[in-house]
Amino acid sequence: MKTQVVIIGAGPAGLLLGQLLYRAGIDNIILERQSGDYVLGRIRAGVLEQVTMDLLHQAGVDTRAHDEGLPHEGIELLFKDARHRIDLHGLTGGKQVTVYGQTEVTRDLMAARAAEGLTTIYTAAPVSLHDFDTAKPTVRYQKDGATHEIACDFIAGCDGYHGISRASVPGDALHLYEKVYPFGWLGVLADVPPVSHELIYANTSRGFALCSMRSEHRSRYYLQVASDQKVENWSDESFWNELRLRLDPEACERLVTGPSLEKSIAPLRSFVAEPMRFGSLFLAGDAAHIVPPTGAKGLNLATADVGFLSRALEIHYREGSQSALDRYSELCLRRVWKAERFSWWFTSLMHRFPENGEFGQKIQEAELDYLVNSRAASTSLAENYVGLPLESF
Amino acid sequence: MKTQVVIIGAGPAGLLLGQLLYRAGIDNIILERQSGDYVLGRIRAGVLEQVTMDLLHQAGVDTRAHDEGLPHEGIELLFKDARHRIDLHGLTGGKQVTVYGQTEVTRDLMAARAAEGLTTIYTAAPVSLHDFDTAKPTVRYQKDGATHEIACDFIAGCDGYHGISRASVPGDALHLYEKVYPFGWLGVLADVPPVSHELIYANTSRGFALCSMRSEHRSRYYLQVASDQKVENWSDESFWNELRLRLDPEACERLVTGPSLEKSIAPLRSFVAEPMRFGSLFLAGDAAHIVPPTGAKGLNLATADVGFLSRALEIHYREGSQSALDRYSELCLRRVWKAERFSWWFTSLMHRFPENGEFGQKIQEAELDYLVNSRAASTSLAENYVGLPLESF
Repeated sequence: MKTQVVIIGAGPAGLLLGQLLYRAGIDNIILERQSGDYVLGRIRAGVLEQVTMDLLHQAGVDTRAHDEGLPHEGIELLFKDARHRIDLHGLTGGKQVTVYGQTEVTRDLMAARAAEGLTTIYTAAPVSLHDFDTAKPTVRYQKDGATHEIACDFIAGCDGYHGISRASVPGDALHLYEKVYPFGWLGVLADVPPVSHELIYANTSRGFALCSMRSEHRSRYYLQVASDQKVENWSDESFWNELRLRLDPEACERLVTGPSLEKSIAPLRSFVAEPMRFGSLFLAGDAAHIVPPTGAKGLNLATADVGFLSRALEIHYREGSQSALDRYSELCLRRVWKAERFSWWFTSLMHRFPENGEFGQKIQEAELDYLVNSRAASTSLAENYVGLPLESF
Repeated sequence: MKTQVVIIGAGPAGLLLGQLLYRAGIDNIILERQSGDYVLGRIRAGVLEQVTMDLLHQAGVDTRAHDEGLPHEGIELLFKDARHRIDLHGLTGGKQVTVYGQTEVTRDLMAARAAEGLTTIYTAAPVSLHDFDTAKPTVRYQKDGATHEIACDFIAGCDGYHGISRASVPGDALHLYEKVYPFGWLGVLADVPPVSHELIYANTSRGFALCSMRSEHRSRYYLQVASDQKVENWSDESFWNELRLRLDPEACERLVTGPSLEKSIAPLRSFVAEPMRFGSLFLAGDAAHIVPPTGAKGLNLATADVGFLSRALEIHYREGSQSALDRYSELCLRRVWKAERFSWWFTSLMHRFPENGEFGQKIQEAELDYLVNSRAASTSLAENYVGLPLESF
């Protein structure tokens, strides 16, 4: 087999890249080690930046996100029993975010890809990458007991933190940066109406809580829990009880509870691998970087990466120029680090860190007090939350 | 002896309070354990917020600060070998800071106090505070071998971190918050023209540096040094050499060096004691809180405290109301903690913290990149640097 770009991973990053490349006339094949149903079963983020919506539009797959997604023009910060609204729309000159589940984005992208008859090879495992230090890389994979090989010009590694793409790069060619936070997020998905029509980020003496949603009928709630907590020890009832203890009285009154559709604990971590390009191999999304979920940057960073990558590949094939490809890693990483900074900062601001002591706690309270009372500080939060603009090649 | 307010400490906070009270018709005596010359010999900060200038004006002692002080409408941040100007004036709707040495402020206040014939008792030591949990406190002191006692309505503790005022409060009535930074500032004062007409804050791989000044002919330079460094090990030559290594080529070329008038190492610390009032005793300035010098908030917080205190006492004596005095601690502390937050943040942003690891270093670089390229983030820095407004009682 032969194609121009082999994309490793059929998550939203890989699928979006495939669609963007296809619409730019660039041939591509996606390899995914799991089944399509497995991919769709992963519960992930649900807040899309305008940059992501624009890329979905460019890919021709934004109809349902527009129709069914919920535009959010603000978020609420809850601390010391009072909620303070950050007017994202007003502070950023009209920008907003769209609440639309990552699972739905993936579903839409899969449907568009199927409609165009493009090749996605599921349950391709194991996959191995070869000769990507040359201009003639190949990708081999096993499927139904047979080994296959695809010759290509480029490989796009969109296969997440645990994927084969980054693992294929020689260790001494990578510089890794990492921070592990001393707590996790216990998340519950439930078919109940959201407690509020906007997201509530709560800083409380019992720890952080987030009231999020996927739609007007499906809520997603999170609690900061100690790293050693086990999901088995959290009944639905104990989850809802603890959530109530972290909300203001009005929210408690409005809270509708119900059986959890999904319940899990995710660790919080910051991670960046540099650079994001090795010869003919380009890393994108979680394969290259992880953010803690506070601020909802993970999916949005991944879509921005593949936005950069599709443009760079388009310039390459159209103009025969390497220059955009050569700048891919640098341009991505500059924006990635700003989002890493924002995610680290918002995580640091909203969670309890007993190891920071009483001084750290007072600094956090002073920052919250300053933040909601300063237009400049609120604007800084807002412009990061809705997403910093993409630089041009 | 009898007076309305006994002020402990003849530093700028105590002297300013004395002058503000005098102009409000409130009788006061200042006690200082050192001599006037000793107080004037202390080399301290030199950047005055507009709030401080306004209070000096209210006290009638701003003539020389206006004539000889240098208005600064911006500061420069140096990192990765490039300087980026923060336009304080443009970003804050016309605010600025004034460079005028604390020593000069003290001198002007002493002169004004002497001109009015007000009582300052120097070399009063030891001083002891009594019955300040009642409405009839007294202050005793020794002078020239004799013991004296002053009966008063209120005591203002403006005697700094090591003073007797906070030390007189029962330990269980105080909540202390503290953070010690793992480095100090090595400072040199020299009669050479400043390297630039605005302050340069430098974040470099060798550590922080600050190019400051006291006048157009007197410069003040600082270097971040490890906590275990001794001033004896730093010759003038080694200081200038190290400073050059932390500046950009243009600044190196312009740097004029000369013999140091003063050279010292100061530790960096954040400290707050809560509350700031105990019955008839009110703490102000360093007696209640310390900030690291990055951001130049120490003197400005002290003047703001005495601004609050003089207004509260004025309301008390004019209207017979306790309400402003009752709010003194809360109003001060709200602004103090915001300045503590700013000073901690600016310190964290500009210094090397090896213990934060490579991830922390990259976050710092990303924040600097974001800060100088975001109007919102620059404005947040600017509005804190020129000083947040004072709330009203």
